[in-house]
Amino acid sequence: MKIGTLAIYGVGLLGGSVGLAVRARGMADRIIGIGRSTERLAQAVEQGAIDEMTTDLREGCAEADLVILASTVSHIVELLPHVAAACKASALVTDVGSTKATIVEQADRLFGRRGPHFVGSHPMAGSERSGVAHASADLFEKACCVVTPTPTTSRAATERLEEFWRLLGGRVVRLDPERHDRLVAVISHLPHVAAVAVLLVAAELGEDADVLATLLGNGFRDSTRVAAGPAEVWRDICLENRAAIAENLERLGEQLLLIAEEVREGEGEALLERLQKAREFRKRLIP
Amino acid sequence: MKIGTLAIYGVGLLGGSVGLAVRARGMADRIIGIGRSTERLAQAVEQGAIDEMTTDLREGCAEADLVILASTVSHIVELLPHVAAACKASALVTDVGSTKATIVEQADRLFGRRGPHFVGSHPMAGSERSGVAHASADLFEKACCVVTPTPTTSRAATERLEEFWRLLGGRVVRLDPERHDRLVAVISHLPHVAAVAVLLVAAELGEDADVLATLLGNGFRDSTRVAAGPAEVWRDICLENRAAIAENLERLGEQLLLIAEEVREGEGEALLERLQKAREFRKRLIP
Repeated sequence: MKIGTLAIYGVGLLGGSVGLAVRARGMADRIIGIGRSTERLAQAVEQGAIDEMTTDLREGCAEADLVILASTVSHIVELLPHVAAACKASALVTDVGSTKATIVEQADRLFGRRGPHFVGSHPMAGSERSGVAHASADLFEKACCVVTPTPTTSRAATERLEEFWRLLGGRVVRLDPERHDRLVAVISHLPHVAAVAVLLVAAELGEDADVLATLLGNGFRDSTRVAAGPAEVWRDICLENRAAIAENLERLGEQLLLIAEEVREGEGEALLERLQKAREFRKRLIP
Repeated sequence: MKIGTLAIYGVGLLGGSVGLAVRARGMADRIIGIGRSTERLAQAVEQGAIDEMTTDLREGCAEADLVILASTVSHIVELLPHVAAACKASALVTDVGSTKATIVEQADRLFGRRGPHFVGSHPMAGSERSGVAHASADLFEKACCVVTPTPTTSRAATERLEEFWRLLGGRVVRLDPERHDRLVAVISHLPHVAAVAVLLVAAELGEDADVLATLLGNGFRDSTRVAAGPAEVWRDICLENRAAIAENLERLGEQLLLIAEEVREGEGEALLERLQKAREFRKRLIP
């Protein structure tokens, strides 16, 4: 796969890692970084994630063969009309947003059948760290990279994009955008908010926080790690995927109130059944 | 610290590790393993966790200077009258049960002021694995070891027990039994049941479980790891510490229903505040 010119909007952890991975594999002739902060762009140039930098979206997209929008979901939605207008007809545009329905719906309205083409992506390779300083050429190695074409998406463009993520080391999964959003609400957003809620309940103890810290083991550390992620990014995710997240949080809240009652009433049989069911389901997911 | 004869009732992960740790440090002349299964006891002898074995509690306790009860909370409560009757007056008895109020209350009634002495312990060094096969002489290294004396507990016995856990590598924390139970309900039992509930909500999706597995990342893996622990042990913990656990689960359920409503209504400000508060509290616990 020879890309020619690659443009990356947003050179943080994900965008920067795409740049490093593409360069390490010699897949592009030229990598342009686009963004709002010249300081962050200069850092990306210094780290070798991009060759050139610009704060002018139109200029950055004009000659690009592949454009990666690596920003927050709400910002990607704002960028799309400008990107659609600035790209040449042969260009392929994708994004790395963590919810897909809004972005893909907007893109389907803006990008014509003749090109430039848009296909949504969600490389599930983030972590609680952010910024180009943590970027790595191996970030997508074995990571699940979801690609979300719709019935109107160009088949050739979809296959080209899937090949791109595969070359970066990803395991490609093709999903309908709405289904993607429903599934990540369960696999990613639900455990995140659950960890946040556990921390908030613990925080309510107030005076005992210092003693809590001395009692803390790996269980608490691991089970709340996700909640160390950037708050703004997660606020956006909650707002973007609100229907699916709200529904799952309601289910989780009801489930916990039910278990609370069983605990209070000492219903050992029912509790054992739930504990076993959860344990077995986890084994099915993670053998 | 020279122990003379150490008796360990229950030679699984914790009991077996006490044996290995004491032997590695040359702290006892003789280590007797007591239990119900000769097969498991024989395995512990073979692994070097104990020197001798017996299924007779009275015989195993008769000459012991230190007795460690390493079984489930409900079983420890059953054992206490027999242990109190079998031990010599100079013996020190402790346990490793993960809730303390029931055990300590019962022991306070059974053990006189003249000895044998009882002091409750909770070495927080378990994991989702169990059995003497996973036991290790380093298990208590840097682990928090809670010791729970009451106003009637012998001060000398308490200090001797604290010294014991310190020599095994533990960080000793002295807590009132009720306070211990309230705090572990938050730091250990709450995240456990939260992970169980997340898995049960995910399991309800049924048909999508295989796709879920392909989308699964480190976040889900880490945040649900605790739920891989033995179901029977956790049923017992839920029943033993029921008041504190039920109260925290209710708080967690209400918290999640509140967040669900904010997500559904798109209240970005309120969500951001919660996410930031949780993140900051975690930083306070784990700097």
